[in-house]
Amino acid sequence: MNNSPHDALLSWFLGPQAENADLFERLITEALRDHVFWRRNYHPEDGITIRELDKRSAGYEEAVATLTQELMGLLAELKRDVPFFSGRYLGHMAYQQTIASQVGYFAAMLYNPNNVSPEAAPVTTRLEQEVAQQMAEMVGYRRDEAWGHLTSGGTVANFEALWIARNVLYLPVAVVGAAQSLGLDLEVRLPDGSNADIGQLDLSQLLNIANRDVLDLWERSWQVAPREDMARALAQHSLATAGYQDYGRRLAAEYGDALPDSVVLVAATAHYSWEKIVRALGIGSNQLIYVPVDGNYRMDPEALWDRLKALHARRTPVLACISVCGTTEESAVDRLDLVLEVRARAGQELGMTFHLHSDACYGGYAASVIRGPDGVRRTGQEIRDALGEDWPSDEWVRSMVALADADSISIDPHKLGYIPYPAGAILLKDRRARELVAVDPPYLAPAGQAEGTEQEYLGRFIFEGSKPGAAAAAVWLSHKVLPLDESGYGYLIGRTVVGARQLYRALARHDFAPFRIILLPEPDINIVCYLLHHPLLESLEAVNALNEGVYQVMSVSAKADPEYIITRTRFQTPMYDRAVDPLLEQLGVATPAEWTAAGKEGLVVLRSTVMDPFLADPPPGPDHISGFLDALADAGAVSLARLIGSSPV
Amino acid sequence: MNNSPHDALLSWFLGPQAENADLFERLITEALRDHVFWRRNYHPEDGITIRELDKRSAGYEEAVATLTQELMGLLAELKRDVPFFSGRYLGHMAYQQTIASQVGYFAAMLYNPNNVSPEAAPVTTRLEQEVAQQMAEMVGYRRDEAWGHLTSGGTVANFEALWIARNVLYLPVAVVGAAQSLGLDLEVRLPDGSNADIGQLDLSQLLNIANRDVLDLWERSWQVAPREDMARALAQHSLATAGYQDYGRRLAAEYGDALPDSVVLVAATAHYSWEKIVRALGIGSNQLIYVPVDGNYRMDPEALWDRLKALHARRTPVLACISVCGTTEESAVDRLDLVLEVRARAGQELGMTFHLHSDACYGGYAASVIRGPDGVRRTGQEIRDALGEDWPSDEWVRSMVALADADSISIDPHKLGYIPYPAGAILLKDRRARELVAVDPPYLAPAGQAEGTEQEYLGRFIFEGSKPGAAAAAVWLSHKVLPLDESGYGYLIGRTVVGARQLYRALARHDFAPFRIILLPEPDINIVCYLLHHPLLESLEAVNALNEGVYQVMSVSAKADPEYIITRTRFQTPMYDRAVDPLLEQLGVATPAEWTAAGKEGLVVLRSTVMDPFLADPPPGPDHISGFLDALADAGAVSLARLIGSSPV
Repeated sequence: MNNSPHDALLSWFLGPQAENADLFERLITEALRDHVFWRRNYHPEDGITIRELDKRSAGYEEAVATLTQELMGLLAELKRDVPFFSGRYLGHMAYQQTIASQVGYFAAMLYNPNNVSPEAAPVTTRLEQEVAQQMAEMVGYRRDEAWGHLTSGGTVANFEALWIARNVLYLPVAVVGAAQSLGLDLEVRLPDGSNADIGQLDLSQLLNIANRDVLDLWERSWQVAPREDMARALAQHSLATAGYQDYGRRLAAEYGDALPDSVVLVAATAHYSWEKIVRALGIGSNQLIYVPVDGNYRMDPEALWDRLKALHARRTPVLACISVCGTTEESAVDRLDLVLEVRARAGQELGMTFHLHSDACYGGYAASVIRGPDGVRRTGQEIRDALGEDWPSDEWVRSMVALADADSISIDPHKLGYIPYPAGAILLKDRRARELVAVDPPYLAPAGQAEGTEQEYLGRFIFEGSKPGAAAAAVWLSHKVLPLDESGYGYLIGRTVVGARQLYRALARHDFAPFRIILLPEPDINIVCYLLHHPLLESLEAVNALNEGVYQVMSVSAKADPEYIITRTRFQTPMYDRAVDPLLEQLGVATPAEWTAAGKEGLVVLRSTVMDPFLADPPPGPDHISGFLDALADAGAVSLARLIGSSPV
Repeated sequence: MNNSPHDALLSWFLGPQAENADLFERLITEALRDHVFWRRNYHPEDGITIRELDKRSAGYEEAVATLTQELMGLLAELKRDVPFFSGRYLGHMAYQQTIASQVGYFAAMLYNPNNVSPEAAPVTTRLEQEVAQQMAEMVGYRRDEAWGHLTSGGTVANFEALWIARNVLYLPVAVVGAAQSLGLDLEVRLPDGSNADIGQLDLSQLLNIANRDVLDLWERSWQVAPREDMARALAQHSLATAGYQDYGRRLAAEYGDALPDSVVLVAATAHYSWEKIVRALGIGSNQLIYVPVDGNYRMDPEALWDRLKALHARRTPVLACISVCGTTEESAVDRLDLVLEVRARAGQELGMTFHLHSDACYGGYAASVIRGPDGVRRTGQEIRDALGEDWPSDEWVRSMVALADADSISIDPHKLGYIPYPAGAILLKDRRARELVAVDPPYLAPAGQAEGTEQEYLGRFIFEGSKPGAAAAAVWLSHKVLPLDESGYGYLIGRTVVGARQLYRALARHDFAPFRIILLPEPDINIVCYLLHHPLLESLEAVNALNEGVYQVMSVSAKADPEYIITRTRFQTPMYDRAVDPLLEQLGVATPAEWTAAGKEGLVVLRSTVMDPFLADPPPGPDHISGFLDALADAGAVSLARLIGSSPV
């Protein structure tokens, strides 16, 4: 692209003052009329069902009056919604959506395709597969090996990843059972690189085989026995069929030892939905093990190694390890490259391996920053030069490049993709794994279509059924206008990072006296976290009350209409043990031990997600950074006054 | 309403020939401009970010050109989508959506509210609760006791129902553990109506306590111990914490007998997603037990009783029984009133009970047919008189009234609610059950808002996280325009049933010679199933090939543009054993035993869902019933010719 990407950026959104309203309305009207005339061109000989004369009836007019009136009511209600579109909103990961995604959604919504199957959505199921491939390529997966699809959001994507991981984990056990019943010999590769006869392995070894090796084994098993026999035998010996209760008994009976329950390791900063997911899957929250994070809120590779050694000593299988690419609270990006090194070391030294999932729901689209339009990786230096910013570090780039080696990745277009809800996605490095969760719907059976084509089978492999094809059209059109590289999403996200870092530096520089601001480390992407302190406050409780008060002044849940809007989170024990120490030290009101004792009260931290790519722009645009600093100082004063008024400290 | 509801109906949809295009475009434009001026009225002093001059830059113009060009490409692609809007589409449960829902979706989508929390969606989270209450009232739940929310679709709704049911099932075990550790005595009501000290009950008794009695026990348990102690003790003894593997061992150790694994009973006609759900939850598909259906494809209450007796003899706990209100294949409505009688009898005679879930994803909105605008139940006779049709039967009405006694109900606005995807819903009869799946997100913690208000807590109790507030607005506006009673949805659905029955009678009357048509029984709602037979065909395989060929001629997956569009399903063993016998008898080419032996090949059945409320209209509207009969006869001839050409029978 020869022209400035910034000029293009100016066309990508409706705009804070709806500056692109004409463009938006033109495209919406175009899409609507195009649909209208599509209907009129479909068998015009059918004649008119709703005649002009009908429209003059009292019943019709009354119904139209009701519709119009109620819509006016809805529009009036919606005016109390949150102004995500404005640079004054510095709260959750919410902003405007790209015009392309909104228009794409609307255009396809008129057709209401259901992406459960090509029969109900011949066009948008194809678009869904295209966008999944685009995302797979963005993260470095091989197009011919990977697979993915859209979900309603990150929770379902993460749920599917863990569901699939469980099926992969226990598959070797099923293959052993099937091989025994069919009288077959099969070999498998172990994490240390050696090969072994599966019949000779103990349970612990069977539950420590790498993803790809499990799937290779699975593929070979189909080649050595009649298809139907193998299908039946594998089903008989699979966890999905037996269920956990029975399977546990069988393992204990057959292997003389069911081993401790398999566990899921997550970065301590992982999203709260992981707890829901392990509970629902029947894994149990006791088996969700938090790996401590370092001072940058990234999974600590040393701590991971220690955990693995301890688990190995107890012979506990690891179902999966969840690394985070863009934490919900801090936008921290785990050093996935180092996590992968730990896994390789565990394979070599402990004979231990596991499914590695990257929860990139938040940060996944930032992988576009390191891609050139030709798909070639950009170096950290090239990106820093282009952005004029000391971001990203070479380590950050390596973390993103390492995504290519994760077994699965969840990534939400409706977060950093600036796409309307609902649009999550799950990507698998090795497409074969999807077969392990396949179920055939009788009324969508693919007979009659070309066997083996990609499109026909989509619905078999996904958890959800009916789902909007419009979401696929939204993502697809947005990717067309903003490619997943430095010219499109990479530029957009790069600008928000520049804005976030300007905000960070402004907060660090600003004199908040009599308040003091305490900042978390510079964010890995675009979430700036901070808290205010005041010399009068001498307890953790008081500091929390101050910041909670600031949040209330600056939040949409307050009855007032705040000048600037932020949000807040609460760092809690045990997840934030250690990571929180530097903050506590700067506060000087509580020791780490006192913080731990505070339990769920934890530490209230203020939080500003910068999604606005215009925040970093120089005037004549609005200077929201200065405005925000003033608003924060004012909110601190108001909160303190309330605090002292209500309960003197 | 004094005016004819049919006049109102004419305004509810864009129309087969987009007759209401002016109305639709006016409302869309209104919503769009309203949003535009909302932005412009928010801090106009911020000035302009995207200036007119910027819009003249080459980069901006190039980007707009790309957007416009790609949108044109998308619109061209979409023309190959399925014409759901036409009376010629008689396939899946897909039609036009109400104008109200489309406009409501679009209007709210511009704001992109995220219904994960009121902080990210102050308006639409409230609308979501309103529509859930409206649906709860429609099915006869008590507004002050029930609770519900929207989901991405039926799969997630059903999944949540079973997840909650499992937590309710094992709760008494957790209470026993907690009571022991805290030294408490608690009583509980048993299914036969007697009371017992929970410490005296064996495991089988603990797993056979009615939903409400479990929740009463749970509520009382909080009253007899300090809150934190009870929370900790319950968590320690709950399945959600321990996970299935550990829990199974504990039950065996503590009760000397872990009992057989708890099972899930489903009507044999249940949706294929139930198999996915039990696999994912770790229950295992072996524990999914099909209850045979009768000749009307409804769960056979006698068969259910027999299953329960057999399970009781083996001391197997029943986690849940899934009754269907509107099967996906046939729109069959289980006699839920009789299922409830069986459950009551099991409680009295066997001391056995279970969570009863109605999968009303498809048929739930048909409950609006039996409601007057005042909320009063209409009798079968009143409805039949109003429709001029011998539908619904009094038994059907009783089945729908019985929904009020189901413990949970899933119901999809995006099916018979004529709402765009994604819009599913889950309703709980007893709102307390939602507490059993609650998880607190740290960054959405409700502090700072009025404690205990309904709105603040929504996100705690649901599986999904981020989700479109636009879906709530769509359902809300549609319910405003089409109330959930005989004047709104009841009328709409009533008319589609009249159309379906006219189609059914026309098929039965029509002379298809040399073909013969074999019809399933008259549908309970609006799906007509049938198959063609020809004297030359002498095997099940040949009949299947004929009907598969008809489907291919009349389906959108064919390359041709068919005059009429249908779909098909495949009845398979063991689910359809017995139910299929009358069809086999009429075909005369295979005995039930031969059908069973055919396995997955099963019996191909053609299927037409009537969603078009205008199908039943007299001329001058198009006569799609006649047109369809001709198209079906032609397709039969084409399919037979291909069949004989390719492999003589």
